[in-house]
Amino acid sequence: SHKIAIIAGPCQMQSRQHALETAQQLKEIADRLDIGLIYKTSYDKANRTSAIAQRGIGMEKSLEIFQEIRETTGLPTLTDVHESAHCDIIKDVIDVIQIPAFLCRQTDLLIAAANTGRAINVKKGQFLAPWDMKNVIAKINGAGNPNAMACERGTSFGYNTLVSDMRGLPIMAQIGCPVIFDATHSVQQPGGQGTSSGGQREFVQVLARAAVAVGVSGVFIETHEDPDNAPSDGPNMVPLSQFEILVAELLEFDAIAKSKLRALEHVLA
Amino acid sequence: SHKIAIIAGPCQMQSRQHALETAQQLKEIADRLDIGLIYKTSYDKANRTSAIAQRGIGMEKSLEIFQEIRETTGLPTLTDVHESAHCDIIKDVIDVIQIPAFLCRQTDLLIAAANTGRAINVKKGQFLAPWDMKNVIAKINGAGNPNAMACERGTSFGYNTLVSDMRGLPIMAQIGCPVIFDATHSVQQPGGQGTSSGGQREFVQVLARAAVAVGVSGVFIETHEDPDNAPSDGPNMVPLSQFEILVAELLEFDAIAKSKLRALEHVLA
Amino acid sequence: SHKIAIIAGPCQMQSRQHALETAQQLKEIADRLDIGLIYKTSYDKANRTSAIAQRGIGMEKSLEIFQEIRETTGLPTLTDVHESAHCDIIKDVIDVIQIPAFLCRQTDLLIAAANTGRAINVKKGQFLAPWDMKNVIAKINGAGNPNAMACERGTSFGYNTLVSDMRGLPIMAQIGCPVIFDATHSVQQPGGQGTSSGGQREFVQVLARAAVAVGVSGVFIETHEDPDNAPSDGPNMVPLSQFEILVAELLEFDAIAKSKLRALEHVLA
Amino acid sequence: SHKIAIIAGPCQMQSRQHALETAQQLKEIADRLDIGLIYKTSYDKANRTSAIAQRGIGMEKSLEIFQEIRETTGLPTLTDVHESAHCDIIKDVIDVIQIPAFLCRQTDLLIAAANTGRAINVKKGQFLAPWDMKNVIAKINGAGNPNAMACERGTSFGYNTLVSDMRGLPIMAQIGCPVIFDATHSVQQPGGQGTSSGGQREFVQVLARAAVAVGVSGVFIETHEDPDNAPSDGPNMVPLSQFEILVAELLEFDAIAKSKLRALEHVLA
Repeated sequence: SHKIAIIAGPCQMQSRQHALETAQQLKEIADRLDIGLIYKTSYDKANRTSAIAQRGIGMEKSLEIFQEIRETTGLPTLTDVHESAHCDIIKDVIDVIQIPAFLCRQTDLLIAAANTGRAINVKKGQFLAPWDMKNVIAKINGAGNPNAMACERGTSFGYNTLVSDMRGLPIMAQIGCPVIFDATHSVQQPGGQGTSSGGQREFVQVLARAAVAVGVSGVFIETHEDPDNAPSDGPNMVPLSQFEILVAELLEFDAIAKSKLRALEHVLA
Repeated sequence: SHKIAIIAGPCQMQSRQHALETAQQLKEIADRLDIGLIYKTSYDKANRTSAIAQRGIGMEKSLEIFQEIRETTGLPTLTDVHESAHCDIIKDVIDVIQIPAFLCRQTDLLIAAANTGRAINVKKGQFLAPWDMKNVIAKINGAGNPNAMACERGTSFGYNTLVSDMRGLPIMAQIGCPVIFDATHSVQQPGGQGTSSGGQREFVQVLARAAVAVGVSGVFIETHEDPDNAPSDGPNMVPLSQFEILVAELLEFDAIAKSKLRALEHVLA
Repeated sequence: SHKIAIIAGPCQMQSRQHALETAQQLKEIADRLDIGLIYKTSYDKANRTSAIAQRGIGMEKSLEIFQEIRETTGLPTLTDVHESAHCDIIKDVIDVIQIPAFLCRQTDLLIAAANTGRAINVKKGQFLAPWDMKNVIAKINGAGNPNAMACERGTSFGYNTLVSDMRGLPIMAQIGCPVIFDATHSVQQPGGQGTSSGGQREFVQVLARAAVAVGVSGVFIETHEDPDNAPSDGPNMVPLSQFEILVAELLEFDAIAKSKLRALEHVLA
Repeated sequence: SHKIAIIAGPCQMQSRQHALETAQQLKEIADRLDIGLIYKTSYDKANRTSAIAQRGIGMEKSLEIFQEIRETTGLPTLTDVHESAHCDIIKDVIDVIQIPAFLCRQTDLLIAAANTGRAINVKKGQFLAPWDMKNVIAKINGAGNPNAMACERGTSFGYNTLVSDMRGLPIMAQIGCPVIFDATHSVQQPGGQGTSSGGQREFVQVLARAAVAVGVSGVFIETHEDPDNAPSDGPNMVPLSQFEILVAELLEFDAIAKSKLRALEHVLA
């Protein structure tokens, strides 16, 4: 019955200054809205559509920036890993390790992440049914880490399109872990622009409203002060100037959802 | 900015007594909740999975029962037609003529329905993209009838499964007609039980919440005092005993959705 | 173990002269290839994307043309019906009555068609699983007509796209009826051009080869001397000039498929 | 215009003896059929549905077995890698490095594989459109390795189901690389048995026939002397006793496909 938490930040860590400024702004919004906010950014985009796309500033440089974000803003941090060996390296500056959707079935990566003792946010693969996330979560729990979250980010629906099946949210909640709705990547159009992925920013609000009304523990929303000039995921990031209004609206829906008999338990009882 | 209207009733007209009793109960619920409610029932189920399934009490007998429902409860009525020639026969006792999803591309049926001057609720075919409903609505409007509604009831997603794409709601709203969300048939599992369709009643609440939070003009929910013994659509009808609680909850989400800048205009602006 | 039959002709009956000329050319090709060919054309396109699209020359005019085609070429005829009442009217000039995919669940239409005693070719709905065609075929057989065929024409795959699941062919063959592969509508892009459906003619050969190698009783291929200027289905019709080469190639694959233990029985044994 | 090559072997390397015996049998079949055959087996199943499933005998032990297979049978070898660092370790005993479908977008892995100089077989992700494989192949070619192959293994189609879109084969051939059809994993039912993936062995023949008739450079078929007791992919492996008959049949279809104007160039010309 807690308020939704928000996972937010720019898709890529572009520079120390950009990361710190964005984190500071998000911290202020979180304070005004009285919500928990986890700062998300990627130090490396290892699965870009094209090999020549920008991949981020790299792991080493990013480590001290993550630490600085934690110290100056007090925000917990989240980033995604693509190689098992990276888990140990980043664990001291990261509060939540995220497993990318394409990698949600890679046992070694899941266990390496679990072994850090950090919370783990696993994106559900675009190819995976919601009920099959129980095996994924079991790999993490089985390694002795009880803090796994399941994150919906869209399911393959024909070519170059994803669809968000809202039934998946209560189904994943039945696994017994918090469920996050990723409103940013759910509106992605994978590969839809030839050498990069497209997106439909205008549907972030639509899908986030729907998910919050159904009932979730958190919402993932990437944001950037100038999405159209961001190095990745521009088409589906929300402008930072609209972020607070969007989240405030979601909190109103969340208050109703949470005031009922716990939705996720109720609907499948 | 009006409250959602509710289209509700038992899938099939089983008998005069059953129809009148259910209508009376729904009328009382509508009064308590202060909402507009349209009484829906089918006089003929012309597209059952199996030829030996019960099809309803037939058109002729049903005509006077529809009229009696209107007179005794004051509720407007809705039913679905499968043959062009039926439109004229039923028009005097029916306020909203519904076009079944499989038939949403049958030009003659659309125009025959339009020519009655009644409001028309067209179910979007399971095979149709939301943006392609503009051609369907244009067939009705082009016949001189401005009162068409577009109704989402799920899209084919693999075999024997439907998925509800919440993005379709604002896309159809852009056509300029009211958008209805059919929470009953969206949880259908077409053909999923061999010689009849299955359903997942437990997700009616989930999908209806999501749709109302996104923003719709109405919600379609079939209900029955004993769904497990109903002659059709039992697996996806809501028990009449839970109907009022469900709708009351939806009204809370609706109040927020409607208090914002009109959602459907906003998100695609 | 018979050779595949071919169902072919222009999508619409455009004029008496056009129909007769095309039929004559197809008759000559059928003779050269020593195959059974059924002449297909529609007298009315009742489910066009847009209400202003051309619908054909109408039922009455077409009746005597169908008869003339039968008399002058000896080819059997096939056409599709959209209203139950039409079945009786056309039955004397039509050898195979075709049920459109959108209408494959309309019990009254199936039974009216069955009652004519003609062979019935039912297109599998884009929303239907192959195993669910058994209920459709049972409606026809149950009305006393043993001559039903099941026709694959693509399954909904995301929006505006169909996919041909080759597993569906042997699954439908298990029902015990001949299976036809419609290579023309399987490459349709429904609604994909705004107010009309698109198509990918270049894949007719690809999908027809695949289906014939799997093993089918017949292939449905619409053809026209100038597809790009045809009134409907232009994007997915094969130019008449390439038709014979295409069918000749299919016959080579068919000979191998049929020389093996009957494929359709074997694979699911 | 060459005959199809066959990639075959048991899903997992179970033991030295089992690997050598199977390789020897496949070598004899390849000699009898006069085809090129590449021996495929996995030393580690890193993405099993469940964490407790058997993963194989490990990389180190397997290295010398791969070498022994090459020496005793003369067959080239193929295995899949899940971590960039493994590419260099295995490259001396492996002729074709395979990139798993889930990992086809992992740039570092693709480049590490490319840098070995070995041929690379990339499985198309279940979430990827065929035209988007051009970016994947470009990552390998861009790293200086021209020997990349694109492998179709099914596309997500609803939950727990894959569909094989035969149009994808010529689309991928247009990239300019050989196209392989994986008939084994295309009939997988991902996650379909709760804690393991199901499969439909009976459709291997169906889909392989279809793909070969369309036109491909090779076919991938896992085989095992006792699939029902194999440690992984049992439900979709072909019994070794039926393997030769199956491939012989495919060669007949291939001869026709290759005797025509090259299919893959022709159909999209």
